[in-house]
Amino acid sequence: MTTFHAYAAMEQGGELQPFEYDPGELQHDDVEIEVESCGICHSDMSMVDNEWGMSSYPLVPGHEVVGRVAKIGGAVSSVKVGDRVGLGWFARSCRKCRPCLSGHHNLCVKGEGLIVGRHGGFADRVRASELWCIPIPDSVDAISAGPLFCGGATVFNPLVQYEVSPMDRVGVIGIGGLGHMALQFARAWGCEVTAFTTSDDKTEEAKKLGAHHVANTRDKDTLKRLRGSFDLILNTTAAELPWSQYMGALCAKGRFVTVGGFVDAPLQAGAFELIGGEKKMGGSSLAPPIIMQRMMEFCGRHGIAPQTEVFAMEDCNEGMQHLRDGKARYRVVLTR
Amino acid sequence: MTTFHAYAAMEQGGELQPFEYDPGELQHDDVEIEVESCGICHSDMSMVDNEWGMSSYPLVPGHEVVGRVAKIGGAVSSVKVGDRVGLGWFARSCRKCRPCLSGHHNLCVKGEGLIVGRHGGFADRVRASELWCIPIPDSVDAISAGPLFCGGATVFNPLVQYEVSPMDRVGVIGIGGLGHMALQFARAWGCEVTAFTTSDDKTEEAKKLGAHHVANTRDKDTLKRLRGSFDLILNTTAAELPWSQYMGALCAKGRFVTVGGFVDAPLQAGAFELIGGEKKMGGSSLAPPIIMQRMMEFCGRHGIAPQTEVFAMEDCNEGMQHLRDGKARYRVVLTR
Repeated sequence: MTTFHAYAAMEQGGELQPFEYDPGELQHDDVEIEVESCGICHSDMSMVDNEWGMSSYPLVPGHEVVGRVAKIGGAVSSVKVGDRVGLGWFARSCRKCRPCLSGHHNLCVKGEGLIVGRHGGFADRVRASELWCIPIPDSVDAISAGPLFCGGATVFNPLVQYEVSPMDRVGVIGIGGLGHMALQFARAWGCEVTAFTTSDDKTEEAKKLGAHHVANTRDKDTLKRLRGSFDLILNTTAAELPWSQYMGALCAKGRFVTVGGFVDAPLQAGAFELIGGEKKMGGSSLAPPIIMQRMMEFCGRHGIAPQTEVFAMEDCNEGMQHLRDGKARYRVVLTR
Repeated sequence: MTTFHAYAAMEQGGELQPFEYDPGELQHDDVEIEVESCGICHSDMSMVDNEWGMSSYPLVPGHEVVGRVAKIGGAVSSVKVGDRVGLGWFARSCRKCRPCLSGHHNLCVKGEGLIVGRHGGFADRVRASELWCIPIPDSVDAISAGPLFCGGATVFNPLVQYEVSPMDRVGVIGIGGLGHMALQFARAWGCEVTAFTTSDDKTEEAKKLGAHHVANTRDKDTLKRLRGSFDLILNTTAAELPWSQYMGALCAKGRFVTVGGFVDAPLQAGAFELIGGEKKMGGSSLAPPIIMQRMMEFCGRHGIAPQTEVFAMEDCNEGMQHLRDGKARYRVVLTR
């Protein structure tokens, strides 16, 4: 019998408490990771609170895992014991459905979330399919790596899937856990980068993160003044936005992409707005394994890292509360 | 002095009546076309009625022009006198703005519509910039060619701009003036084609036009049953649709493209719908000159033609009324 030592919420919204479980037999394509660090993502809170109606308890959060490979199943060949790897939202994809066969394993119709009916990375060990255990290059340190596997991938993928060119003008809405990485990515991608914010006190911060320009959208004329200015606008917030004004801020063939729009009200776009400039409104969901690999290489090459605040794993409740209070600047990481 | 003999609405919603005007001096890059035929498009009615608030009177409708080049300005070199050409919505683009320089002259920020502040093709002669005078291959006859230059281009362009592959599953909403051409295009493009309609009596017609499948969306379960089935859905109607169900009918990375959604209410898409499958909602507007050229070649190669009903140019009011009454099957063309 094997025992993993974790922290779990025993009920909806519950405090995390020490929790042991037997992960069972190691599957053929499973990798067992000895956890070094694990980021706390906003969706860990959503899952603890069962916001999306798919939580089961006990629930061990944690899906921004960094660690060393401790054991591998018989069919595993892409990593070996001792390798440093990271693990994000997904634990498993079928590799057989149309999205998987097309390289979009993140859109797998049978994809298993690491903390959806399984146990995550707030633990000494965690298991997932080899597919989603992504090698971490030496150029990226353990603390920085974690948040890249969920938050980072979430804002990196739109640059790939929406075919952003280094010549493009990119806007990022929100300078927070997601946005502060998006600004770095877009800058290193070679684009002209504008940060949209509603608080002037983030201006200097946004510029340090890579923004060439910072636009305060509390001023109602800001978006009108920027009419036709952007090839891509990435929304990292969960707020209801002035959709029409943002669509107007796109240039011909511009794309408005949301990754954080978990609001009740749908996004809206006038038919003329879409037709007149051949504009698009779309979404992006995490990233496929191949893009995560290449994102890690990109981060190493460009020195891109999330800004992190570190808590000990046993202080995970304190870390969660810090994030709940909106105090995180910008990603919280637990270390063992 | 030159005199063009046309038919014009003298006021908003007015009947067309004989109208003569002096087109002034031929500009350097102008082509003067002797009109052979001219299609009637739904937007001719919208312009006569000043639905979009940009009409001026007298208003000579007609922007699906087919004819022979009668005169050319000093700078014209891509066509010569006697050539058979067609002309659609646009008369002029600046060739200097970012969209023009990128090959998207249809998105020109200074684009001039042929019947917006200028006079169109319900006439013996009409003028437009060389840029928008598109050669017609011998393989396409004069009556069929006209409607391709506006209605045809409108539904052909999405296949290009949204990178539809011949392996894709394409749905077309609406079997009318636009949809009946879209079905032919998508079929010849190599796709698996589904026609969405609300009237069973169009089933056979849709199949003749190229649909492999016809789905009646009056049955509320139809779209649910087709969940995840389409790479691209093209909306050719101006109706408010069950957006959420159509987004659900797209597969991962699917695109919902509207060309006809001139409704007051905006299109809607839930954030989760966009994010979960990396789906897009977008628009398309006519087509650039290079795509119109290649569309004509494509039509010639595949024997694609609109279904037309022919009226004499002097019976243009009768033709307009036929269209207003919703009786056109499917495009009305005036001949001289």
